[in-house]
Amino acid sequence: MSRCWVDGIEIDAVMADDRGLNYADGAFETLRCAQGRIECYALHRDRLAKALQVLRFAGAASIAEQIFEAVRGHLAGVKHSGPARLTVTRGSGPRGYCPPSNSNPRYVLSTATAAEAPDEPVRCGVSTVFWAEQPQLAGLKLLARTEQVLAAHEAMEKGWDDAMMLDSNGLVISSSRGNVFALCGNEFVTPSLCRCGIAGTRRQLLMERVLPELGFGVSERDISLQEMLSAEGVVISNAIRGIQPVLALNDRTYHLSALPIEAIKAALQEHVDACVD
Amino acid sequence: MSRCWVDGIEIDAVMADDRGLNYADGAFETLRCAQGRIECYALHRDRLAKALQVLRFAGAASIAEQIFEAVRGHLAGVKHSGPARLTVTRGSGPRGYCPPSNSNPRYVLSTATAAEAPDEPVRCGVSTVFWAEQPQLAGLKLLARTEQVLAAHEAMEKGWDDAMMLDSNGLVISSSRGNVFALCGNEFVTPSLCRCGIAGTRRQLLMERVLPELGFGVSERDISLQEMLSAEGVVISNAIRGIQPVLALNDRTYHLSALPIEAIKAALQEHVDACVD
Repeated sequence: MSRCWVDGIEIDAVMADDRGLNYADGAFETLRCAQGRIECYALHRDRLAKALQVLRFAGAASIAEQIFEAVRGHLAGVKHSGPARLTVTRGSGPRGYCPPSNSNPRYVLSTATAAEAPDEPVRCGVSTVFWAEQPQLAGLKLLARTEQVLAAHEAMEKGWDDAMMLDSNGLVISSSRGNVFALCGNEFVTPSLCRCGIAGTRRQLLMERVLPELGFGVSERDISLQEMLSAEGVVISNAIRGIQPVLALNDRTYHLSALPIEAIKAALQEHVDACVD
Repeated sequence: MSRCWVDGIEIDAVMADDRGLNYADGAFETLRCAQGRIECYALHRDRLAKALQVLRFAGAASIAEQIFEAVRGHLAGVKHSGPARLTVTRGSGPRGYCPPSNSNPRYVLSTATAAEAPDEPVRCGVSTVFWAEQPQLAGLKLLARTEQVLAAHEAMEKGWDDAMMLDSNGLVISSSRGNVFALCGNEFVTPSLCRCGIAGTRRQLLMERVLPELGFGVSERDISLQEMLSAEGVVISNAIRGIQPVLALNDRTYHLSALPIEAIKAALQEHVDACVD
């Protein structure tokens, strides 16, 4: 059963004057839980803190810490396993873009049942929707997600499992719901996210720990669609599904045997288990 | 007193699984009302329809029309005068960016008391926050307004009345809460909004009717900050305040006498009164 808390109260509604609703004035985290514990707790908390900092929430780091503490309590209390979503907004406010000086952040925590699609290989097309470049907000998981909504909608309409998303220069940034890694020789290339995109927690673990420990080089840089089509293999990562291999991108079919998927999965899960809290 | 309706029911809360809150999946209109009637009814309705169309709401135009009919009824019923906000979201949905195929749009209408700052001359600085360029969504009043929130916050912190906002190329796009017009010779220049920005209803009236009728040329094109600083005068337009002259932009002080403010205000109000519904 799905549950929902708003500022610690179990209720499934928020005030209509919430600035998250009215201006996308907030950020969120998609969490995976195991028996009431949050995987990659510190990575999620720190990314939230960074988003709130960029949004100029006063005391961003301590807000993120306090909210995560409260969230940990709720999830432990119901021993939740599966996905959960934590949304933090600037709370209620009067009409107008300017945040009220006395704003009180609000959090919404909701759990979902774990009936996710399995982490099977996915067939992707390339979305016609671009990521806008906004270096000042890049990497953050802010509430404003119009482009990903439209790309996911396009994938559904066209019968793809997921949509690869580019920026306006034709560089690959992500799929509609995850970060991407392309195997080029003995190196995994993952797009630089300094101009747009969301820097995922699993992307960080893969880059900093998992792939180097498996003997792969990791390069964070610009990668064109052409280069991704020429790669030996591609994987998509996110917090809920871990990693998924890409079976096809447009007309290009990848040989799944080129990727040590099971080894990466196992190593990623080991690191995830090590940072459960 | 401020009132709020959600899908026709007078209530001030929305479901926490609303996609407007969770993904900024929706659009809004800021309306000014006079004794229960909506100024520029058709312009607002048509802009909303366009936004819902770009967001791929099925039957966007008829949704916008039906919602505006309902909203007209609520506002007439309470004879509201002053600002109102209409938000339309894709409604509730499960976790995930992809809109549910059976989504039911939701609307939130809220009124505010008319205690707005008067339309006095404003002192502006230039925001350090840029408009991201996203031609696919430009001109629309979508819920995702992070950049304007941050620019308005910066204006407050720095003691400006409003913030001028540029794109990453240094071209002027708007202020944090309105469109801008610069008087250059006998012509008003207003920024082209094909890459970013919101195309306001009052901007449209000013461009198409008011300024030509007063004998001014109107040019919709790129305008650099330098050119705006060199202009004889600048005005900001939006639905609530009509037009406001800019008194200063950074160190540049404009001579307010260079602008026929009262004539423009009167002509704009005449056109607004002619399209009340």
